Amino acid sequence: MASRVTDPTALFASAVNGDRGSLARLLSLIERGGDDARTIGRLTYPKSGNAYTVGITGAPGAGKSTLTSAVIGHLRAQDLNVAVLAIDPSSPFTGGAILGDRVRMQDHATDTGVFIRSMATRGHLGGLSLATTEAIRLLDAVGCPWILVETVGVGQVEVEIAGKADTTIVVVNPGWGDAVQANKAGLMEIADIFVINKADRKGADETRRDLEQMLDLSDLAHDAWRPPILQTTATSGEGVEELWNTVAQHREHSTTTGLLQRRRSFRLREELREIVERRLEHRAREICSGSEWDALQNKVLENQLDPWTAADDMLKGIKA
Amino acid sequence: MASRVTDPTALFASAVNGDRGSLARLLSLIERGGDDARTIGRLTYPKSGNAYTVGITGAPGAGKSTLTSAVIGHLRAQDLNVAVLAIDPSSPFTGGAILGDRVRMQDHATDTGVFIRSMATRGHLGGLSLATTEAIRLLDAVGCPWILVETVGVGQVEVEIAGKADTTIVVVNPGWGDAVQANKAGLMEIADIFVINKADRKGADETRRDLEQMLDLSDLAHDAWRPPILQTTATSGEGVEELWNTVAQHREHSTTTGLLQRRRSFRLREELREIVERRLEHRAREICSGSEWDALQNKVLENQLDPWTAADDMLKGIKA
Repeated sequence: MASRVTDPTALFASAVNGDRGSLARLLSLIERGGDDARTIGRLTYPKSGNAYTVGITGAPGAGKSTLTSAVIGHLRAQDLNVAVLAIDPSSPFTGGAILGDRVRMQDHATDTGVFIRSMATRGHLGGLSLATTEAIRLLDAVGCPWILVETVGVGQVEVEIAGKADTTIVVVNPGWGDAVQANKAGLMEIADIFVINKADRKGADETRRDLEQMLDLSDLAHDAWRPPILQTTATSGEGVEELWNTVAQHREHSTTTGLLQRRRSFRLREELREIVERRLEHRAREICSGSEWDALQNKVLENQLDPWTAADDMLKGIKA
Repeated sequence: MASRVTDPTALFASAVNGDRGSLARLLSLIERGGDDARTIGRLTYPKSGNAYTVGITGAPGAGKSTLTSAVIGHLRAQDLNVAVLAIDPSSPFTGGAILGDRVRMQDHATDTGVFIRSMATRGHLGGLSLATTEAIRLLDAVGCPWILVETVGVGQVEVEIAGKADTTIVVVNPGWGDAVQANKAGLMEIADIFVINKADRKGADETRRDLEQMLDLSDLAHDAWRPPILQTTATSGEGVEELWNTVAQHREHSTTTGLLQRRRSFRLREELREIVERRLEHRAREICSGSEWDALQNKVLENQLDPWTAADDMLKGIKA
């Protein structure tokens, strides 16, 4: 009986060779953070840069998961492999649960060309945003050509994550106005493509006019990409092919104008900043615990040391 | 003409000798944070520990400032000196403004036994909570026997700051229920004394019953201090003497039971933790700027370095 492999380097070698269990375990290590996550980051970076990421976001109940499932079907019909990261506690991909690797979408559960993974939205000591970036890079490095990132468009972090994709689809519904009022500005800002899903319902035309008006007001440069507004009925698959063709157009536009490169550079700089911040936070937690900390606290409490000098002692070696 | 003194050590010597301008300048340096603030912290710590702090908090419009003013009058009638830190953008002490040293209370503006200072609630790189702690210590170190800290009971940080006093007074009004619903739990937790101000208005008895009921449910130990509920009409001064006698009772209780010592130890530990955290945050900001940072970013963008190794380079010397 083979013992369970836990070394990231060995797991990564297996994952590159197509072992899904190793891939799942690496993703768990990324979620956990710390040394293993760093090792994985170092292994994946040189092998990444080939995948294209598509963010799918919107209010809860907008039909993001159904649309994602329809997109998967569309890609699989062309024999394209696809990975999905679901960062949405309410998504059926995650089964409403919090942690772990769950393949719940009946249509795709047994398809080896589809890899579906949920990410917990809470409990990332290293930060959800950073964990997602590293998870995407891992999927990229093991050879996934398309990565769909589904996030619920509620909460600043989630919207930011969706906006980090190469192409971001914002899913709304007829009469969406009130439901996403709070995040409308944030969603408007990150949208490369708007999808009015459940377009068979009443109010689709008003929603389109509403969006067009907001885009008119948004002061786009004359040569900028104006987010197209599409209509889909994800449950029947209607409009999904056109949506995917529009993603291809946006990819073409981004590539030829240099937008894609600029976005990826920006993301890389953000990632570097996040890594530094998270590690200093981690260091602060380490410093503020343990026996040396207790001893210094006691010296301060006994008036032998002022708190500023005590902090200096704890931070010695750190020019802070 | 004497040049403006800016050296914290010289300013502190003047402030100890009663120079109010030097005291004001030291408080500005504390608000600004950085090296001068640290120096002040080192100077004040050995000379502190004699003042008694009273927090006064409650919803906007509850009459905190009027009550504070009445308390000042009560203390001055006994020839006791008093300092006030107002952390409340809506307070007449601060004139609704954001920064600086303002003495706006007509009754006390010319009284040298009263020192009033507003603290900005925003823009503290070092953290409002830490700046307040250091400001209190400075006032203590220059010999203020009583320090009143008035904060608006809205926002977690402000409520926490009010809760850091030796005795905390929570000011409510008849019919307060809805106004402070969001922060009721937080205010309940920090209250040593409840004051129903504007007690001449309708509903004071219901408010008292409401508070008593909450206290009945709050599972106090049998020997614990049960927050008394007083009634005042701050505008006329009614109830202020009884309030101050109750503060004295709470001080006596805290001192004899050891509660005061435990609270102060807890605060000191919190302060030490905050100092370490703020300094590491500061370090993160320093690291993520400057030419070395730019050069490393470019290496990452040009694929010569992965972001994790780049972060290691930036953090070298910091075991993070």
